[in-house]
Amino acid sequence: MYCGVRAGCILELDLQTAVMIILTLYMPEVNRLFGHCIYVISTVLAGTILLLTKKRTPTDAGEKTMSIIVNRRDLDFVMYEALDLNTILESEHYADYDRESLDAMLDLCQSLAEDQFLPFAAKLDANEPKFVDGKVETIPEVKEAINAYREAGLCTSAYDAAIGGMQLPWMMDQALNGMFVCANNPVHTYLFLTQGVANMLNACGSDELKARYLPKLVEGEWFGTMCLSETQAGSSLADIRTKADVRADGGYNISGTKMWISGGEQDITDNIVHMVLAKIPGSPPGVKGISLFLVPKNRVNDDGSIGDSNNVALAGLNHKMGCRGTTNCLLNFGESGESIGYLVGEPNQGLANMFHMMNEARISVGMASVMAGMGGYLYSLDYARNRPQGRPLVNRNPEDAQIMISEHADIKRMLMTQKAFVEGAQTLIYYSAQLIDQQKLSTDKEANARTDLLLGLLTPICKSWPSEFCLEANKLAIQVLGGYGYTREYPVERLYRDNRLNHIHEGTWGIQGIDILGRKVQMHNGAAVAVLREEIQATVDSATGMSGLAEHCTQLKDALAQIEATVKTVSEAADPSLALANATIFLDAMGHVVIAWMWLKQAVAATRGLQQGTAADTAFYQGKLAATQFFFRYELPKTDASLALVAGLDSTCYDLSADQFTGS
Amino acid sequence: MYCGVRAGCILELDLQTAVMIILTLYMPEVNRLFGHCIYVISTVLAGTILLLTKKRTPTDAGEKTMSIIVNRRDLDFVMYEALDLNTILESEHYADYDRESLDAMLDLCQSLAEDQFLPFAAKLDANEPKFVDGKVETIPEVKEAINAYREAGLCTSAYDAAIGGMQLPWMMDQALNGMFVCANNPVHTYLFLTQGVANMLNACGSDELKARYLPKLVEGEWFGTMCLSETQAGSSLADIRTKADVRADGGYNISGTKMWISGGEQDITDNIVHMVLAKIPGSPPGVKGISLFLVPKNRVNDDGSIGDSNNVALAGLNHKMGCRGTTNCLLNFGESGESIGYLVGEPNQGLANMFHMMNEARISVGMASVMAGMGGYLYSLDYARNRPQGRPLVNRNPEDAQIMISEHADIKRMLMTQKAFVEGAQTLIYYSAQLIDQQKLSTDKEANARTDLLLGLLTPICKSWPSEFCLEANKLAIQVLGGYGYTREYPVERLYRDNRLNHIHEGTWGIQGIDILGRKVQMHNGAAVAVLREEIQATVDSATGMSGLAEHCTQLKDALAQIEATVKTVSEAADPSLALANATIFLDAMGHVVIAWMWLKQAVAATRGLQQGTAADTAFYQGKLAATQFFFRYELPKTDASLALVAGLDSTCYDLSADQFTGS
Repeated sequence: MYCGVRAGCILELDLQTAVMIILTLYMPEVNRLFGHCIYVISTVLAGTILLLTKKRTPTDAGEKTMSIIVNRRDLDFVMYEALDLNTILESEHYADYDRESLDAMLDLCQSLAEDQFLPFAAKLDANEPKFVDGKVETIPEVKEAINAYREAGLCTSAYDAAIGGMQLPWMMDQALNGMFVCANNPVHTYLFLTQGVANMLNACGSDELKARYLPKLVEGEWFGTMCLSETQAGSSLADIRTKADVRADGGYNISGTKMWISGGEQDITDNIVHMVLAKIPGSPPGVKGISLFLVPKNRVNDDGSIGDSNNVALAGLNHKMGCRGTTNCLLNFGESGESIGYLVGEPNQGLANMFHMMNEARISVGMASVMAGMGGYLYSLDYARNRPQGRPLVNRNPEDAQIMISEHADIKRMLMTQKAFVEGAQTLIYYSAQLIDQQKLSTDKEANARTDLLLGLLTPICKSWPSEFCLEANKLAIQVLGGYGYTREYPVERLYRDNRLNHIHEGTWGIQGIDILGRKVQMHNGAAVAVLREEIQATVDSATGMSGLAEHCTQLKDALAQIEATVKTVSEAADPSLALANATIFLDAMGHVVIAWMWLKQAVAATRGLQQGTAADTAFYQGKLAATQFFFRYELPKTDASLALVAGLDSTCYDLSADQFTGS
Repeated sequence: MYCGVRAGCILELDLQTAVMIILTLYMPEVNRLFGHCIYVISTVLAGTILLLTKKRTPTDAGEKTMSIIVNRRDLDFVMYEALDLNTILESEHYADYDRESLDAMLDLCQSLAEDQFLPFAAKLDANEPKFVDGKVETIPEVKEAINAYREAGLCTSAYDAAIGGMQLPWMMDQALNGMFVCANNPVHTYLFLTQGVANMLNACGSDELKARYLPKLVEGEWFGTMCLSETQAGSSLADIRTKADVRADGGYNISGTKMWISGGEQDITDNIVHMVLAKIPGSPPGVKGISLFLVPKNRVNDDGSIGDSNNVALAGLNHKMGCRGTTNCLLNFGESGESIGYLVGEPNQGLANMFHMMNEARISVGMASVMAGMGGYLYSLDYARNRPQGRPLVNRNPEDAQIMISEHADIKRMLMTQKAFVEGAQTLIYYSAQLIDQQKLSTDKEANARTDLLLGLLTPICKSWPSEFCLEANKLAIQVLGGYGYTREYPVERLYRDNRLNHIHEGTWGIQGIDILGRKVQMHNGAAVAVLREEIQATVDSATGMSGLAEHCTQLKDALAQIEATVKTVSEAADPSLALANATIFLDAMGHVVIAWMWLKQAVAATRGLQQGTAADTAFYQGKLAATQFFFRYELPKTDASLALVAGLDSTCYDLSADQFTGS
């Protein structure tokens, strides 16, 4: 009845019990066949029955005519029409799942996100966690929401069955979690961080460490954090000062102060597992001397029970512009007593071990940004369709009724810009998830190396393009609502504030620029760009003969050629610093080319859909084709001027001295 | 001693008294010659003495190595080198002022803004005015700051001496007030609104109304508000429902609800003068039937004393993302008793009367946006120059010292982008102020009509360009500070939140776009654009022969030609709605061309400065030339794609139906 109890939290218990009884007792055949995922099935079954009968709770944003956290038609389109989740589901590894069971899970998660996460998002923003007597106080809704999520088994969604996970395709994991992120990202951040820590521990930790900590992390009973930055060392990890002195028992005494630690302290879980970068005395200077340590908030006894405090002290909370619901902490290690840490992986390999999961973390940051943009887009679209104001330019008669603002050309432009940015970026995130899934399923070394190149190239774009352009979408969502959008009574300004974080953490905008132009496009003689070219060509080939897409194909190929020419010029530049001086501009421009490709992918699928689909879907597919046209006409042409600037090795900013800004 | 008391508030009284005694008693010649502005002189003299002797109070942002509200060298440059305040000061109208006296006033205002406005800006943001028992409660610092400003006589700065004002050039009024706006815009907003109301009353009100209300508004003893919007009618004023029923005594009973009223209720002044748009029953429908009424919060007796409440009830406060220090109210008129209003100007001319001061109000909104950008730019520049982090790309040796982040190419780019946007937009605001001053001083009807055309054309750009690009500057200021920038412990995120308002009030972004493309560039057969062309040509002529500027001149002329070609195509379009569908994109692009012109103006002045100026200014002038080059290379090329889109009458968004966004 373990699973029943977990799921019972979000379902009326009697119904859940009934389903469990049916499945486990009266249908032993089901029980035998579906093994470890029985609780998923029972949850989904019960959830589906409930959804068909239950009146949905209105959110704090009022009863909406459409969901403001997800467009399910679009989600289906991206995963099954523009991309290829079907093929992934055919693999042995995901044999427990099919489209139907995943759809039911999406239903359940949407319901849970809308009913348990969304309603208090504004309240949490207005009542951020407080620092009281060295501890954190959080509003109770956070714990309730996390309990509901945990009890539904969702903490385990991304892990393999071998370590107790649901073993879902990564794309589906993104889809499920995306709805929670859209509904209330500050709450979901605790879960996202924990997943990163568990993956890192699983990949690099000793069996003993794994045995003691991994199950708790996987189940979401304890949360995890990443402790990298210090007040004097944010982007420059070479300069961290936290120290790890070896102990007689083989552990280490950790001492130092860590800054910007999301979830560093909280009152939600009984223990916290910190992953801490520190230096063992005598190790090489700089990044080559950084090691990774697991440092629990409370020590863990041999029987798994929680022991004494490990002296990780909360020194203060940062007060952020957005994402206020997640604590962000200054932590002192080893100040009030010994903070014992355990080496994860080899000494001095801390950064490599940390980067082991950096691709996935950076893609998840991009996803958070997409979802903030999605929330603004859907909300402002719904608002615009229901808000009467003004009249057509050609008929100003005040005695005629006002029209909905979604009929005004400039409102349409702002909605379309949001759609193009948000849905374009979403497709890129799901495409990258597909690459991760494909890599996991394939044993073909050459194919995997190729996927790895492409994924490495796309990762800085996944991270930074949404952080820039889905933030822009949030800005437009506010504008659609006008004065209302600027008030905290409506969610769009909060989403804008939340989203502003994403250019900063997990590698800043500028660092992503240097990563892509200084490393990713150049490595192995441009092998990654070559893979990209092949993949783009495949999409172009699939568009051949499709009405209205020929012009887009030419434009995309030209833009890619300009990218390649720019990379060539930059590679040959004599001054490597000047060569990278405009790397951020290159990053944005290359992002535009990749997003244009994602729109071409969608346009191909939409054209097929119009040819083969049902009439009910016509408006949907036409909207996709219009958004593609928008991106190719309004956005892609901007890359020309940007790339010319990068290729010209413009030194205007680079040459400037600090005193020239103000003259003193 | 009236003036002495007023100034005494910000100065030690003994010093002020001494100065007053010297001026008024021992130097009767001074007293005779300088008439009405004696208090300005005494204030400035005393202030200067104090500034030379007094230790400055550290601000809440910590003791900075440079001012974070103004670069005085730049202000001087714009007003006296790039623009021509000297000529304006030579006029009879401004005979009381010269460069020296104005410099001293700037010193005094900078000190007042830094000491009395800046220190509590963050506190006010965190403690916004509260709604308690139908009244507003504001933190006491607001009243203290406003008293200091009022007592220094600054409320009167912009008015003519005839109504008790300082009669300053408008450009200087912008410069003085700009520092207060940068230091604490939410407090200054009360003053800015009051100035608009006083100007409107002075221009359109009856002698009786002016006698009763104008002096109190001019002195800043009472504040004013603009009551236009209603919950169902924001941008669409044709649909307002507030009613004005004529009374037997010639007044009107006002009834209805007004929304988004900044300063609609406050606990700072004893009375509030509302300027209310309402409809007299029987008047024509739509905007042609709107009249303007003065509605005091408290009635005013014949002797000028405050009488009974006028039943203007605060129904609620809006809670904004930024600009939190200014109340924003929902007001009920005539619900709990009669709200008596007095007609201002003729019946049904309300909108025309309101628009009488709209140009200046819109330019002031642009100024507020520039100053938010300026605050972020100066703060992030100072931070970057003092924050060590990381090493040069070509020398990563961790044993070498870290460099200041202002040495990193991408930080330079972000600082330069801020400089180019903020200083470019600031020049446009001051240039527009110069046009207003010139118009005021000239009796040449033809010249004034020409100035009027140019000012009309530039106004939507003054309003919207900073709202877009100085907001972008604020975004970059956050990025320069990294994680710190995202916290409320640093001012840059607050300035970003404050600045997001400016695209919304006083005519939205979209409305400015329709104004410029649908009206301003087309009126009188394109006469305004013709004036712009002449003025740009004059700047180009002045740049002839100057090293490095020839390319910029060609580029600017080409961009202007593209503007003209685009206007021509749009004017000839068959469908007027489609013609304006991309008006906002045109607005931004035309703004870029105008700001490029402003940079060329500055480059010409900087080149002259390098030829004639002192060596100490070399870095300053080089910075100006670099920023010009930046704008012409990094920004202006973007207009090409935008204008091509507008000229192509692209209908991608225009053709979209509301259901195509999501497919349902």
